[in-house]
Amino acid sequence: MDIATLIGIVLGLGLIVASMLLGGSLMMFVNIPGLLIVVGGTIAATLINESLGRVIGAIKVYMQAFFVKPVSAIELIEKVIDLAAKARKEGLVSLEGEDIPDDFLARGVQLGVDGLAPEVIHAILTGELDTLKKRHTRGQTVFRFMGATAPSMGMIGTLIGLVQMLGSMEDPATIGPAMAVALLTTLYGAILAFVLFLPIASKLETRTKEEVAHKSLAIIGVESILKGDNSMVIQSKLDAYLSPEEKAAKAAAE
Amino acid sequence: MDIATLIGIVLGLGLIVASMLLGGSLMMFVNIPGLLIVVGGTIAATLINESLGRVIGAIKVYMQAFFVKPVSAIELIEKVIDLAAKARKEGLVSLEGEDIPDDFLARGVQLGVDGLAPEVIHAILTGELDTLKKRHTRGQTVFRFMGATAPSMGMIGTLIGLVQMLGSMEDPATIGPAMAVALLTTLYGAILAFVLFLPIASKLETRTKEEVAHKSLAIIGVESILKGDNSMVIQSKLDAYLSPEEKAAKAAAE
Amino acid sequence: MDIATLIGIVLGLGLIVASMLLGGSLMMFVNIPGLLIVVGGTIAATLINESLGRVIGAIKVYMQAFFVKPVSAIELIEKVIDLAAKARKEGLVSLEGEDIPDDFLARGVQLGVDGLAPEVIHAILTGELDTLKKRHTRGQTVFRFMGATAPSMGMIGTLIGLVQMLGSMEDPATIGPAMAVALLTTLYGAILAFVLFLPIASKLETRTKEEVAHKSLAIIGVESILKGDNSMVIQSKLDAYLSPEEKAAKAAAE
Amino acid sequence: MDIATLIGIVLGLGLIVASMLLGGSLMMFVNIPGLLIVVGGTIAATLINESLGRVIGAIKVYMQAFFVKPVSAIELIEKVIDLAAKARKEGLVSLEGEDIPDDFLARGVQLGVDGLAPEVIHAILTGELDTLKKRHTRGQTVFRFMGATAPSMGMIGTLIGLVQMLGSMEDPATIGPAMAVALLTTLYGAILAFVLFLPIASKLETRTKEEVAHKSLAIIGVESILKGDNSMVIQSKLDAYLSPEEKAAKAAAE
Amino acid sequence: MDIATLIGIVLGLGLIVASMLLGGSLMMFVNIPGLLIVVGGTIAATLINESLGRVIGAIKVYMQAFFVKPVSAIELIEKVIDLAAKARKEGLVSLEGEDIPDDFLARGVQLGVDGLAPEVIHAILTGELDTLKKRHTRGQTVFRFMGATAPSMGMIGTLIGLVQMLGSMEDPATIGPAMAVALLTTLYGAILAFVLFLPIASKLETRTKEEVAHKSLAIIGVESILKGDNSMVIQSKLDAYLSPEEKAAKAAAE
Repeated sequence: MDIATLIGIVLGLGLIVASMLLGGSLMMFVNIPGLLIVVGGTIAATLINESLGRVIGAIKVYMQAFFVKPVSAIELIEKVIDLAAKARKEGLVSLEGEDIPDDFLARGVQLGVDGLAPEVIHAILTGELDTLKKRHTRGQTVFRFMGATAPSMGMIGTLIGLVQMLGSMEDPATIGPAMAVALLTTLYGAILAFVLFLPIASKLETRTKEEVAHKSLAIIGVESILKGDNSMVIQSKLDAYLSPEEKAAKAAAE
Repeated sequence: MDIATLIGIVLGLGLIVASMLLGGSLMMFVNIPGLLIVVGGTIAATLINESLGRVIGAIKVYMQAFFVKPVSAIELIEKVIDLAAKARKEGLVSLEGEDIPDDFLARGVQLGVDGLAPEVIHAILTGELDTLKKRHTRGQTVFRFMGATAPSMGMIGTLIGLVQMLGSMEDPATIGPAMAVALLTTLYGAILAFVLFLPIASKLETRTKEEVAHKSLAIIGVESILKGDNSMVIQSKLDAYLSPEEKAAKAAAE
Repeated sequence: MDIATLIGIVLGLGLIVASMLLGGSLMMFVNIPGLLIVVGGTIAATLINESLGRVIGAIKVYMQAFFVKPVSAIELIEKVIDLAAKARKEGLVSLEGEDIPDDFLARGVQLGVDGLAPEVIHAILTGELDTLKKRHTRGQTVFRFMGATAPSMGMIGTLIGLVQMLGSMEDPATIGPAMAVALLTTLYGAILAFVLFLPIASKLETRTKEEVAHKSLAIIGVESILKGDNSMVIQSKLDAYLSPEEKAAKAAAE
Repeated sequence: MDIATLIGIVLGLGLIVASMLLGGSLMMFVNIPGLLIVVGGTIAATLINESLGRVIGAIKVYMQAFFVKPVSAIELIEKVIDLAAKARKEGLVSLEGEDIPDDFLARGVQLGVDGLAPEVIHAILTGELDTLKKRHTRGQTVFRFMGATAPSMGMIGTLIGLVQMLGSMEDPATIGPAMAVALLTTLYGAILAFVLFLPIASKLETRTKEEVAHKSLAIIGVESILKGDNSMVIQSKLDAYLSPEEKAAKAAAE
Repeated sequence: MDIATLIGIVLGLGLIVASMLLGGSLMMFVNIPGLLIVVGGTIAATLINESLGRVIGAIKVYMQAFFVKPVSAIELIEKVIDLAAKARKEGLVSLEGEDIPDDFLARGVQLGVDGLAPEVIHAILTGELDTLKKRHTRGQTVFRFMGATAPSMGMIGTLIGLVQMLGSMEDPATIGPAMAVALLTTLYGAILAFVLFLPIASKLETRTKEEVAHKSLAIIGVESILKGDNSMVIQSKLDAYLSPEEKAAKAAAE
């Protein structure tokens, strides 16, 4: 998915640059003060409501998400069934020291081994899930805010350019180029928002949903282990959350 | 419904092409670089937040939905009443091997035959329904995102064209045609969004609601069978979910 | 209310036509191809996500709503109190064959007479209410979609007109009239959306709320009858849902 | 608050008129047909979805709200504590005939004196609160609808003016004034929406929240009286809903 | 965070002023009547729905929030564990007079010392949290309203300027400067909304979320103390709400 995102950004910017080159020189589209007002203005507005540290934190979380490959839902379900079978035979305590590839599942099992009551474990795991949701939502909020602010800053830049052009309109021949420059900030704002910030915000939203779905599955799994459900019940319960493709992959593997 | 969708797309595009032809040549509306920036830019932005595989998956799910004709609500209710009557007389196990046309209902009944507790069955079926809702919502999200992105890409293309035109405005006679070309990307973006992406997103939403309603009915049916409700109670419970037209059709059939 | 709606539509269109006549000829505002692209395009986009049958169904439901005069909340409350008193004295079965003007209330009472358990009756009545809400919401969705699509189609029509005008700009004298024609589709789209589709969608929303409130009152009434509440309790419970005007009207009548 | 609203409206309109006068004559901004299409069109569209009686009713409710000064939260809490103390000592029935300045609290206490069960009283009071919320929400909806419709009508008026101007463009000297007139309807729509309708809708929303908060406090108070909570518990429970300013005012008064 | 907000505002305004200076004189961008209509109009519209006192109150709350440094989540958790250990050993009453740096936690503990039942304490603390949320939401609403109104007022100002310019268009040479002046109000509205009001509204939203999360943690802590949970359970329960950075900081400190 990492690669698709990179391809998307490169492809989007590439198409725009190509289309600029087709019509003449790329230099026609470079305007440093305009770039400053759009990029700087967006950063400024973002700083007003979010510390720089938090923005960098959001980006870091985002980056991490690319490189941590999650355990697949199918593997997770298999692991849960194994653990439950063992727990039924040898008791919950026998799960101590088990190798569990999914961190969140491992944490839930460990809490059970530690002897905490099921409802306390449930409260802890849903608490962690809530915290994760809030943290991710915050990252999305930052990028959505930037996606809404960049075009506004572009509009402010264009208005400033228009006022300057209209206020000192001596030679009609200069109107065209002056207006072209004024429009550049609107263009910058649109590119930043629609090619960068808003797609990234959407991507964060998609990833959050995936991670929440995965962790919810782990919570149901932990509950089943604690309750001592048998394999067939666990299988039926957890399979309900697989997509048709995952179900087909699983059936093919069996 | 399949046909109405096709008719809608063909009719919409046909009207637009007809209206272009009326005012002169269709070639006036073809601009390959503009088409590239709008279509390519929309695909690029979509790739940033969704893997290509997922987009193709969404389209496949969508296509499938056209060709799988669902069992009607009336038939479903009749089947539920038959099954419940048999279960009351001969026990739940007698439903083993019954021919049940609706897959979801069949699955619920099978879980009952397998001896799972009603609340476990309920958890499994609502889990599947949730998973279906999430998958469909995701398909809608992709198309809505494309519907929001296409006009933005069109605007970016038009801004690029305007800047190029205004930056090199020597011969006033070329302004008109240059501006016409610049406006084309906005037109492309609008057509893609309003004739294709957004109506398809709405259609997916409509289908999701239908499918969720149908599966919810099946869940209530399974619960009634497990509880051993008598025919009249089941009839009254399930009829509550029929539309006036379905009720009229049913009354006419009786 | 029927009449207010008709007056509203006639008044709105009348004002627009009058304002067109004031500035010259009405013919200046007629453009058959433009009308085709806006009306046809809106129908096409609607067909993509909704079968024609469903759209006509939505309109039919809408029309019916005008001519079925609902029982007033005050009459409904009085009837509930009468029925509850009779049920307390002579038993629930004595309500068999009672003349109950409100269909929904009658249905609930009949289910009680038939001996169904209160919680089953509650499930059935709220099921019917849910189905009604979904059906009405769907009608609103269709009109809102048309209200969002018509201006978009108008914009597409105007863009086509502008491209044609700009692409073949030989005689400056033709610019004005050509641009006027191009703007017509935007005008058509705006009139359709803001004078027809969106107000009708709002009206459907208002009616839905009224009908839901009325049926919710009936559900509370049925529950009170089944529970055997005394007149004073029922009165207090149901009066809580009257508007100040209805309360005043009731106090005046007593 | 009444006065602030009036000041707001007068100040907003005054600033606009002043700014018109600064640039020349006010007559330049008067265009009766344009005013008719915007004001009349907005009324027409509103009539389509809401009877005139209801709109007038909404305005009446709104006016009333200005002149009925609510009992302050602090007084309400004190009264609740007094009533609860008396009820604990002399029984609930001793509250009969008590002078209770807040109508809603008085009603709840009366229901308790009448001997209704606490859960019935709770159902009645929350039912009344729901009805109030719905009624107020409806008023807001009307004004928001008008706020969305007025600029649309202004746009329709401007489009009509532009088409007429462009369609008969003989003397270039008339373009300016004709366009000025065409723009007037957009201006009217914006003033109506942004200076009148939308702020009033917001104000109704604010008032609703205040009234709901106040009545919710009364409901908690009634429950405490019925339960026989002691003064300290009631105090702690109700103080939780005071704003920091109210707490400070209360502490200062003690 | 205070400083980041200030830096953001200064940076944003600085960039805009710099960009104005680059193109010529700053005086070109000063227009007192335009400023009056945008700033005054926004204040007027805000006054219509909110008393001046309330707006000032919102700003005061906002200012306070900067200077009250909250106790960190980690310290809060440690304090809760200490208190719970002491309460388990020496009884709840021994917590009387304990020095608790977090006000909200202190309040909850005091209510427990006072002997109130856990469910009453829970009702009181969540009541306070609700009141805080409502108060903060109201502050956000005011700034969002101003952020939506300022550009509208800017548009009204620009329309007035355009009508005046177009209505008296004698000397084509004056068109440019007149239009520049007309555009200024749109620029003012955009700067106010996008550089001031909307970022501040977002900041208030962020702060509210932080404060709600912090107080929710305190509520869970109080509940654990009252229930007599042991240290390990409390630790696990509360750690679930820490961010990864906080967890790392805590692990490093141990």
